Amino acid sequence: MRRRAVLGGLSAGLVAGVAAPAVAQSLPEIKWRMTSSFPKSLDTIYGTAQIFAQYVAEATDNRFQIQTFAAGEIVPGLQALDAVSSGALEAAHSPTYFYYGKDPTLGFGTGMPFGPNARLQHAWWHFAGGKEIINESLAKFNTISLACGNSGTQMGGWFRKEVNTLDDLKGLKFRIGGTGGKVLERLGVVPQQIAPGDIYPALEKGTIDAVEFVGPYDDEKLGFAKVAKYYYYPGFWEGGAMLHSIINLDQWNKLPKFYQAVLNNAAEAANNWMLAKYDAVNAPALRRLLSRGTELRPFSMDVMEAAYREANAFYNETAATNPLFKKALDSVNDYMGEQALWWQVGEYSYETLMLRTRIKR
Amino acid sequence: MRRRAVLGGLSAGLVAGVAAPAVAQSLPEIKWRMTSSFPKSLDTIYGTAQIFAQYVAEATDNRFQIQTFAAGEIVPGLQALDAVSSGALEAAHSPTYFYYGKDPTLGFGTGMPFGPNARLQHAWWHFAGGKEIINESLAKFNTISLACGNSGTQMGGWFRKEVNTLDDLKGLKFRIGGTGGKVLERLGVVPQQIAPGDIYPALEKGTIDAVEFVGPYDDEKLGFAKVAKYYYYPGFWEGGAMLHSIINLDQWNKLPKFYQAVLNNAAEAANNWMLAKYDAVNAPALRRLLSRGTELRPFSMDVMEAAYREANAFYNETAATNPLFKKALDSVNDYMGEQALWWQVGEYSYETLMLRTRIKR
Repeated sequence: MRRRAVLGGLSAGLVAGVAAPAVAQSLPEIKWRMTSSFPKSLDTIYGTAQIFAQYVAEATDNRFQIQTFAAGEIVPGLQALDAVSSGALEAAHSPTYFYYGKDPTLGFGTGMPFGPNARLQHAWWHFAGGKEIINESLAKFNTISLACGNSGTQMGGWFRKEVNTLDDLKGLKFRIGGTGGKVLERLGVVPQQIAPGDIYPALEKGTIDAVEFVGPYDDEKLGFAKVAKYYYYPGFWEGGAMLHSIINLDQWNKLPKFYQAVLNNAAEAANNWMLAKYDAVNAPALRRLLSRGTELRPFSMDVMEAAYREANAFYNETAATNPLFKKALDSVNDYMGEQALWWQVGEYSYETLMLRTRIKR
Repeated sequence: MRRRAVLGGLSAGLVAGVAAPAVAQSLPEIKWRMTSSFPKSLDTIYGTAQIFAQYVAEATDNRFQIQTFAAGEIVPGLQALDAVSSGALEAAHSPTYFYYGKDPTLGFGTGMPFGPNARLQHAWWHFAGGKEIINESLAKFNTISLACGNSGTQMGGWFRKEVNTLDDLKGLKFRIGGTGGKVLERLGVVPQQIAPGDIYPALEKGTIDAVEFVGPYDDEKLGFAKVAKYYYYPGFWEGGAMLHSIINLDQWNKLPKFYQAVLNNAAEAANNWMLAKYDAVNAPALRRLLSRGTELRPFSMDVMEAAYREANAFYNETAATNPLFKKALDSVNDYMGEQALWWQVGEYSYETLMLRTRIKR
């Protein structure tokens, strides 16, 4: 707004340094390629990349086109950041915690075990320093992120046998990746990394004892309910997993400022789409699973509190050697410490009432 | 996307019927005026109209300008819909439940007592028919809405004496408006409509016994804590109050399609801004209030369950004479019935853990 006042009648576009188009305020034609880290079969999470591209196209009269690709079509899902970093692709839709190995700080971009839920993760990103910290890490890879989607709280996974005590975790072969696996490993779990297509046979044959994936809708498709009876909750390692539109920094910097704003707004809209869409498909999927014999089990407080202690020990060890990780950890902890009482008084007390009056018995 | 395929190399802008600009794909200049229904002193809620206008300007290289006005600068806050309906203003930022008297269906646009929380209200709007129902009502007033902001769960208000039983509600002079007032009236409360500037003296003098307003941040500014000790929660009549950008339908229809998309995306981004901003300012405000002697009190289950019964009776009475209201009521109830189990298993169980580990004691 201030810029407008200074410029008066001049075209702001001229000053903003738009290079190509002849008319300053016109819509330049741009074509990008964006890889998702997920297959098309995960249609909600892959669909978020598509809806982001659609929102951008719609807001630019189809002049800014982002073509989306599933994992493996151009690069494997876990190499999305590399492809954007090198400039091979302009953009990726991916969770930053896939790149924990490059910088553990990136774990906080999607969310760490016992981290914020979806709403607080989004608020931390925009209002409490999250965006700046994660983009400081991503800048090392010549990239920048826009928050773009959230799964909400995920499920804790499918278990062939009940897990009641800490002893039940010892030696448990559990298909779980990322930081959740690292935390549970400290409690005796043997984390397994298995590609989606290979999980079902491994669980069926007993090569693994348990698997966590996403939530009822995606899990139902993979058929886990047929070979594992107990469906645990909550997925305390993914309380609100945030997805990102990760963009090559050179490509970002050469966009007209107003195209950057278009991307920002489209990412916020796509963020909301993903969260609402997952709720829309998960709720009936959970009902179907239960009607066919799946048994819900909450993790015991013993298990969750032990995991919480190990998570904090793990965070503190990492923080001791990585100053940016420490900055992220302190930032999340300060934010959550500040928000907890208000959340309990406001949202949580209302949800308690909402559930009490709405649950169909 | 389909349109692009059909048009091939043609400029889509030409076909979309953009009237004024010489170059089809340019950014036409548009200036709108938007009144908020709130004063500038409520800087978070008024700020949402400003941030919406800012996001629109940024995404159009400042070519689409929306000038915002506080309640009373052009029209009083409660006449915002009339002003947009008549075409005197292009847009308003307002909760639709202010216009319950025109069509009670509009109550559902912001949220009714015991309705969805912020996230589920937003999901109902986009994925479960909410947008279509509310816009069917708004079309009667030649307007259309974009969801644009949410307060989150509000507080239940400030009481000079404790309210423990249903008897304590009898004759209680309570500053509360809208449908919350209508429900509590059935339990013997005497609802009072008082403008913000007059509430404090009324409470101080004992002309009224209690007041509900918004949440800790806004309530703190009005000084209620100085004359009422007990701060009740939750505000079960506003579990997630949704704000709207209400737009004159003729103005909307004559926008280029891509400007409509810019508005849609900006509204989603502003929606998230308001929710996160309120959390950011409410959490420390609640802490300050408690440190200065305010005492938190949850409403008793007796009070809330009686209010729930009266709310449903009230809804059913209204539904009997208003088919669109009935459609909205059935839609919300179906959606909430479907979501409740999944919410309990996913979000609520995770929040329980999150609060257990995060509350500073």
